[in-house]
Amino acid sequence: MKTRGSLIVLSGFAGVGKGTVLKTLFETQEGYAYSVSATTRQPRPGEVDGVHYFFVSKERFEEMIQNDELLEYATYVGNYYGTPRAYVEEKLDQGFDVILEIEVQGALNIKKKVPDAILIYMLPPGAQILHERLKGRGTETNEVIAKRMLRAAQEAVCVSQYDYIIVNNDVDECAANLHALIRAQRLRVRSNLPFIRKLTKELTNLSEKGE
Amino acid sequence: MKTRGSLIVLSGFAGVGKGTVLKTLFETQEGYAYSVSATTRQPRPGEVDGVHYFFVSKERFEEMIQNDELLEYATYVGNYYGTPRAYVEEKLDQGFDVILEIEVQGALNIKKKVPDAILIYMLPPGAQILHERLKGRGTETNEVIAKRMLRAAQEAVCVSQYDYIIVNNDVDECAANLHALIRAQRLRVRSNLPFIRKLTKELTNLSEKGE
Repeated sequence: MKTRGSLIVLSGFAGVGKGTVLKTLFETQEGYAYSVSATTRQPRPGEVDGVHYFFVSKERFEEMIQNDELLEYATYVGNYYGTPRAYVEEKLDQGFDVILEIEVQGALNIKKKVPDAILIYMLPPGAQILHERLKGRGTETNEVIAKRMLRAAQEAVCVSQYDYIIVNNDVDECAANLHALIRAQRLRVRSNLPFIRKLTKELTNLSEKGE
Repeated sequence: MKTRGSLIVLSGFAGVGKGTVLKTLFETQEGYAYSVSATTRQPRPGEVDGVHYFFVSKERFEEMIQNDELLEYATYVGNYYGTPRAYVEEKLDQGFDVILEIEVQGALNIKKKVPDAILIYMLPPGAQILHERLKGRGTETNEVIAKRMLRAAQEAVCVSQYDYIIVNNDVDECAANLHALIRAQRLRVRSNLPFIRKLTKELTNLSEKGE
């Protein structure tokens, strides 16, 4: 029996380590697909169409909105960002677990459109550790760090609307926990209705034969 | 942070191998508690009070019903069977995942009383295999086997009301999958609200300090 994959929406504060954990997950485990967003912003040096983003025109993006081709979309600094539905559906049908890395509002929008989506929020073990990680990067000004901490505090109140949390204490352990959590979704009854129906039919046939 | 355990309700057709899988789970993993039922029936030779069942009088059982001391109860062949609430709550508070092995109606009753309970149904890989396992025991008459197959066919239509299924193809693999599934429940947001609240408060304090 081939089980349809799960749509996994992953969010987390800036600096919590989503990118590193996902990199480890993809390098150590099979069966995952990463959902590539569409955007109307210009590619930055080194960004590849179809890998980092699908780069599309404003007209094309608005056509996608009209045709309901997007699972969700948002505007940010004058540009559109959205999740193309077709790619996600295709990969789910092929049995991949599709990971969508997205911020809180987009995540909650996805949950409305796709109730089966699993919302996971990655948290640091403590607030102080998040602060130290942001400082430790050495690339951000104190002002930017303060803004990120404020944003984290604001976002934290939305975490209770997610399905699961995952604590990033250690990258390998966090990736392993994330993998176990995602694989467990394959055991959900709603992901296995064809198998359950088939088995019920077989049992009925066998018991009607009086065996 | 200490996470409260999950209440796990496990059901499955007669002959599917629940007992063997649970034995393997308890022998290979820690942190589990098995909920012992109360009953008014007489102990059979070898059965120990508090291990196999809590053996109580009819009067005491009806008192437990009156005092809402039972998570669920049912009558079977003139005797009461039920799940004492206190033991389950105590073990959950201590951080144990509590396993309750119970039939379909009891399981669905538990879900009504304890919406956080996780309902897992153990299935055979196919109907024919279940039939062969029942025959292979060599202890049942053909008539009993036919009745069990009929009952399995009837019960199968209730499986869609469970949360998860787990297929018993291989005992060790099934126990490992069951363990991963149960451990994943500890990542549920609703099991981690105290931690989320604490972190939110810390983040707010830090960002108010302007750090």
